[in-house]
Amino acid sequence: MTDFSRLDGRAFDELRPVRITRGFTSNPAGSVLVEFGNTRVMCTASVEEGVPRFKKDSGEGWLTAEYAMLPSATHERMPRESMKGKVKGRTHEISRLVGRSLRAAVDLSQLGENTIQLDCDVLQADGGTRTASITGAYVALADAVAVLKDRGVVPGEPLLKPIAAVSAGIIDGHVCLDLPYEEDSRAEVDLNVVMQEGGNFVEIQGTGEHGLFGREQLGEMLDVAAKGCEELIAAQKAALGW
Amino acid sequence: MTDFSRLDGRAFDELRPVRITRGFTSNPAGSVLVEFGNTRVMCTASVEEGVPRFKKDSGEGWLTAEYAMLPSATHERMPRESMKGKVKGRTHEISRLVGRSLRAAVDLSQLGENTIQLDCDVLQADGGTRTASITGAYVALADAVAVLKDRGVVPGEPLLKPIAAVSAGIIDGHVCLDLPYEEDSRAEVDLNVVMQEGGNFVEIQGTGEHGLFGREQLGEMLDVAAKGCEELIAAQKAALGW
Amino acid sequence: MTDFSRLDGRAFDELRPVRITRGFTSNPAGSVLVEFGNTRVMCTASVEEGVPRFKKDSGEGWLTAEYAMLPSATHERMPRESMKGKVKGRTHEISRLVGRSLRAAVDLSQLGENTIQLDCDVLQADGGTRTASITGAYVALADAVAVLKDRGVVPGEPLLKPIAAVSAGIIDGHVCLDLPYEEDSRAEVDLNVVMQEGGNFVEIQGTGEHGLFGREQLGEMLDVAAKGCEELIAAQKAALGW
Amino acid sequence: MTDFSRLDGRAFDELRPVRITRGFTSNPAGSVLVEFGNTRVMCTASVEEGVPRFKKDSGEGWLTAEYAMLPSATHERMPRESMKGKVKGRTHEISRLVGRSLRAAVDLSQLGENTIQLDCDVLQADGGTRTASITGAYVALADAVAVLKDRGVVPGEPLLKPIAAVSAGIIDGHVCLDLPYEEDSRAEVDLNVVMQEGGNFVEIQGTGEHGLFGREQLGEMLDVAAKGCEELIAAQKAALGW
Amino acid sequence: MTDFSRLDGRAFDELRPVRITRGFTSNPAGSVLVEFGNTRVMCTASVEEGVPRFKKDSGEGWLTAEYAMLPSATHERMPRESMKGKVKGRTHEISRLVGRSLRAAVDLSQLGENTIQLDCDVLQADGGTRTASITGAYVALADAVAVLKDRGVVPGEPLLKPIAAVSAGIIDGHVCLDLPYEEDSRAEVDLNVVMQEGGNFVEIQGTGEHGLFGREQLGEMLDVAAKGCEELIAAQKAALGW
Amino acid sequence: MTDFSRLDGRAFDELRPVRITRGFTSNPAGSVLVEFGNTRVMCTASVEEGVPRFKKDSGEGWLTAEYAMLPSATHERMPRESMKGKVKGRTHEISRLVGRSLRAAVDLSQLGENTIQLDCDVLQADGGTRTASITGAYVALADAVAVLKDRGVVPGEPLLKPIAAVSAGIIDGHVCLDLPYEEDSRAEVDLNVVMQEGGNFVEIQGTGEHGLFGREQLGEMLDVAAKGCEELIAAQKAALGW
Repeated sequence: MTDFSRLDGRAFDELRPVRITRGFTSNPAGSVLVEFGNTRVMCTASVEEGVPRFKKDSGEGWLTAEYAMLPSATHERMPRESMKGKVKGRTHEISRLVGRSLRAAVDLSQLGENTIQLDCDVLQADGGTRTASITGAYVALADAVAVLKDRGVVPGEPLLKPIAAVSAGIIDGHVCLDLPYEEDSRAEVDLNVVMQEGGNFVEIQGTGEHGLFGREQLGEMLDVAAKGCEELIAAQKAALGW
Repeated sequence: MTDFSRLDGRAFDELRPVRITRGFTSNPAGSVLVEFGNTRVMCTASVEEGVPRFKKDSGEGWLTAEYAMLPSATHERMPRESMKGKVKGRTHEISRLVGRSLRAAVDLSQLGENTIQLDCDVLQADGGTRTASITGAYVALADAVAVLKDRGVVPGEPLLKPIAAVSAGIIDGHVCLDLPYEEDSRAEVDLNVVMQEGGNFVEIQGTGEHGLFGREQLGEMLDVAAKGCEELIAAQKAALGW
Repeated sequence: MTDFSRLDGRAFDELRPVRITRGFTSNPAGSVLVEFGNTRVMCTASVEEGVPRFKKDSGEGWLTAEYAMLPSATHERMPRESMKGKVKGRTHEISRLVGRSLRAAVDLSQLGENTIQLDCDVLQADGGTRTASITGAYVALADAVAVLKDRGVVPGEPLLKPIAAVSAGIIDGHVCLDLPYEEDSRAEVDLNVVMQEGGNFVEIQGTGEHGLFGREQLGEMLDVAAKGCEELIAAQKAALGW
Repeated sequence: MTDFSRLDGRAFDELRPVRITRGFTSNPAGSVLVEFGNTRVMCTASVEEGVPRFKKDSGEGWLTAEYAMLPSATHERMPRESMKGKVKGRTHEISRLVGRSLRAAVDLSQLGENTIQLDCDVLQADGGTRTASITGAYVALADAVAVLKDRGVVPGEPLLKPIAAVSAGIIDGHVCLDLPYEEDSRAEVDLNVVMQEGGNFVEIQGTGEHGLFGREQLGEMLDVAAKGCEELIAAQKAALGW
Repeated sequence: MTDFSRLDGRAFDELRPVRITRGFTSNPAGSVLVEFGNTRVMCTASVEEGVPRFKKDSGEGWLTAEYAMLPSATHERMPRESMKGKVKGRTHEISRLVGRSLRAAVDLSQLGENTIQLDCDVLQADGGTRTASITGAYVALADAVAVLKDRGVVPGEPLLKPIAAVSAGIIDGHVCLDLPYEEDSRAEVDLNVVMQEGGNFVEIQGTGEHGLFGREQLGEMLDVAAKGCEELIAAQKAALGW
Repeated sequence: MTDFSRLDGRAFDELRPVRITRGFTSNPAGSVLVEFGNTRVMCTASVEEGVPRFKKDSGEGWLTAEYAMLPSATHERMPRESMKGKVKGRTHEISRLVGRSLRAAVDLSQLGENTIQLDCDVLQADGGTRTASITGAYVALADAVAVLKDRGVVPGEPLLKPIAAVSAGIIDGHVCLDLPYEEDSRAEVDLNVVMQEGGNFVEIQGTGEHGLFGREQLGEMLDVAAKGCEELIAAQKAALGW
């Protein structure tokens, strides 16, 4: 194991500065700017009456999500997906992850036949855009549910306990929390964890493209990720005034 | 002519509050948040080496632009163009207008064989998104050209005099400047003017879908638009510290 | 100002020879071949029962337009848009212009819940294809409305006063009317004017990609365009036997 | 076999009136309007330097074709393929047939590394659009080859003997030549024949969607089709002044 | 005529070994693996309630087909059509041929308002994939109709007499039956014949891209094809236990 | 915890019967049919000279993968992605997973500038298609690498230790290995594990859409998955004759 310290001087198990700004824009029911260091994502929750066909007449609602990067979000500008007429596999994959994760934060049976559409648009990318998206989307979701309840549209309490997400990884053999782009691109292993308040997992995705990982390393990564998620959930609750 | 006053209490020839924030994000060479009242557009200018095929070996550079709305920018969420696999005609039309307009602000022969890509992404829409885009894009362009000159990439001085854009319209017979969505949607006539510092026109587009307009009314709209553009150019120069 | 005369010997404010042939094909309700010099456009008006969703149960009709170039219409053959699976921005832009313009020639509230679909297909292109399209489409529209009235489908009188369109431009400092491709490609300024009989404007679009223009020049271009539109309206009325 | 006479009074083995107009438009190297009764197709032949990748450095040329219908060509307007972003299977199938057929009329080894692009755009459809396209395309091809030879671009003689195409069918048990839409839509069997001058076949396609056919009926259809093709080839040669 | 014998030692009018395996997969109502030598196609028939819009309330059913090649079916891997977002003309053409052909094997009026969807997916390609597809699809169709009858969904007897398909061609002047890829790619003429039991034709398609063909050669090719189809129909019946 | 036994009578930690058939088709360098119970996937490995642009002149090779379902693979037929012109997010996600996983089984620096393209086409789906794909793809990869070495194309030894993949899940509180569709669709938690011989992880993906999971449950699922992967690797080695 080589001598190693993080570029930005953080401890191995330390998050980047987190900022959650509610009411970032005014048209959607919920609109949040979430920042994990230099990563900035605009997360909105829009409410539409009705549900997709496969949920029709189920009495339940639905929640879906779309993730995208603005073309100028990255260091090298990326072609705009709408102009290419094709959505990249990576975009699809993250959109699906965000949707699955946030469905674990909502009781669809309490939502009535309404659909919540989450949009996570990355304004600036510096690693961890999917985990920031999930973390910010929960806050936007909470605001949108409050709007629905104010309007008297939902009978019950659809909002479940907070969920948050963070990445962990192994760099030169060291387990690190919340990787910026610089670290992410050279990590041996990359693990994304979505956790509910209390410590249960919603989703874990660990990938070892530049190296494999054993049970022990997985355990260490889950430890720092759990710590990170707890801190993020605290930040969510502070932002929501809970 | 009916009795008429503007919802937000502005004078007929008064702009909405204008804010221009440079360095809004840090990856692109130029990145500006421009606000015309509640309309907010992120305008970035990215620089790429090389030029499109039709400019190859011309010794000249190129400038192109893409305009888009985030799906949650509008009151009712709009479907994401990338997911539909199709760009709407309106999006194409405005992208082309922004590109044409900004090419009037740059001397391509002084740019070397480099391409400047402008991206105007509407975060929040309340009328005038295309004119705000053009106005903000000039500032992003100026910053990007400065970066190019610092890097020693451009031999000459590619940046020309400022251009800005504003809308004018006729509502219940009254000529009004800088229409928000509420006014725009019920205007009889809608005129978008792109002007260079000094008063010459780069582009004018007048449309009378809900009513026609005569030479005299055109003249009045051009008068207020010229006044608006001058004020916007002053705001651009203040933002740039010129 | 350099010495200048037009390639085809026309006066500066003179139209190219105009021909309007009704009944060019027999399937659509209205079918017109319009020729501005060597520019030839087939303009058809088809009638469909029913209206798009956003007009449903409004009691009103709708009118929409599509413009396209045959691949062999231009000097250099252009790729077929259907084969590329993408419609170019320019095509979208002109389709939208034609639709907006012709909606100013029809009273939708008198049309019943019917849709008129205009198709402007350029068989041969030599500049001014969008203005020829608008001019020809009015005649096709008039024929289609007559068919509707014959069939007793429309209760009222949906057809409004004639509209026509023409281009003007500035070449080497000279204001010229109705530019063929040769002139158009080197014009400093290009103005397209859609005018109703009587002189009111439906739409004006002025672009100065190779040079700017002042109020005075705009005035001169509007003067020649107005003269051109009046002559085109006379040709439309002659063709219609009015 | 029921009593049967053709709607337009033609004999069973009689072609509709055929008209071939050369020089229909002026930009392509060859441009022909071909009419089989009310079916009208604009056939053009454009020449491009170079060949597709699979022919590169072969010393040979290439010929390809695209067939399309204008949306207003049919009785009921059809959606524009470019707007749907998809080309229909029928369109693909006919484009491929036209290309294959006309490649039998050209000696690619005598063409140099040039590509001839044929476009067959149906202005008005009344049955037999694919056979009219092939018949007209040969004349456009002949004109284009003459242009190439005038320019001194082709070393040898790429044009081979004329080919023409016609449909035959069985209606109520009667073999008929050159079916208009009305007949085609109720024919039991439909046969398209592409023939070279002299009587050899380039392509035959017989389909019995509403009924099968035996060897004897096939023979009768081939007889009338051969007669029709001979007459069409005579018309081609007359049009070409051969 | 040069001295010629077939690579695999077959007689000129001899089929490759034919194998038809029913129940190849278990989810579709009918599932057949058909092999013509090394050509292997999985043919399935799926049943869906309801019919396409143009058949609604007709009391009749519908049958449609899709043909495709797996990307690794050919010697050189071909790009996957779904990833390119475009279906090739050849694929469309064959899908349409299979659908038309099999509609001749079913009495739609006896099917009720049900749709049979045939899928012919080529696992391994060695020439004759379209004829193998048609031949195998009939067996899958027969199995699917039996399922429908068992379920009591169809009132009558929708299945008509067997159809089969085979290719014939001319190689170095010799008429050959059932061409593998090696022979197909150098054949002067290629004929595909779809025949019903008893000898009537459903479809014939003859193409002479590398050479023309006369009436006599056509006759010889039809002779061997008829012999081949008869043998294939015998194999279908054996597989079905008829 | 309710009383629970598996439908097919398997023990909780028991795999379905596994079959691996090499040389399933003959055109690709490697071609394998892999069966996990009723799930059947054709996995092929094709070799192409050259590498994608981002690997050019790196001296290294590349490996990529595409996963797809045949439309009739599932109980209800699914629309063909090529016909819709769009690849589903799920398809993209799995293709990416297969590619990432198999890149962990190959040393790209030993491959020369060659690309290995894996295709996993699901012939019949009954749960676990992605894990069967990965498991089968390793065997196809091994065969393809052997072909490359035979041809003398690769200098070194690109093939690394075997990898295999299996699913685990929690059903009514019970941890189960290798879930068929029936179980998968009602599992509370679903975990896919890709493991290298020896026990290190290549990728883990755990999702709790119908319920969350704690550290202990994760541990139990990893235990059975590790056991399953070991058995699969033994089956791979047996198939390869190692």
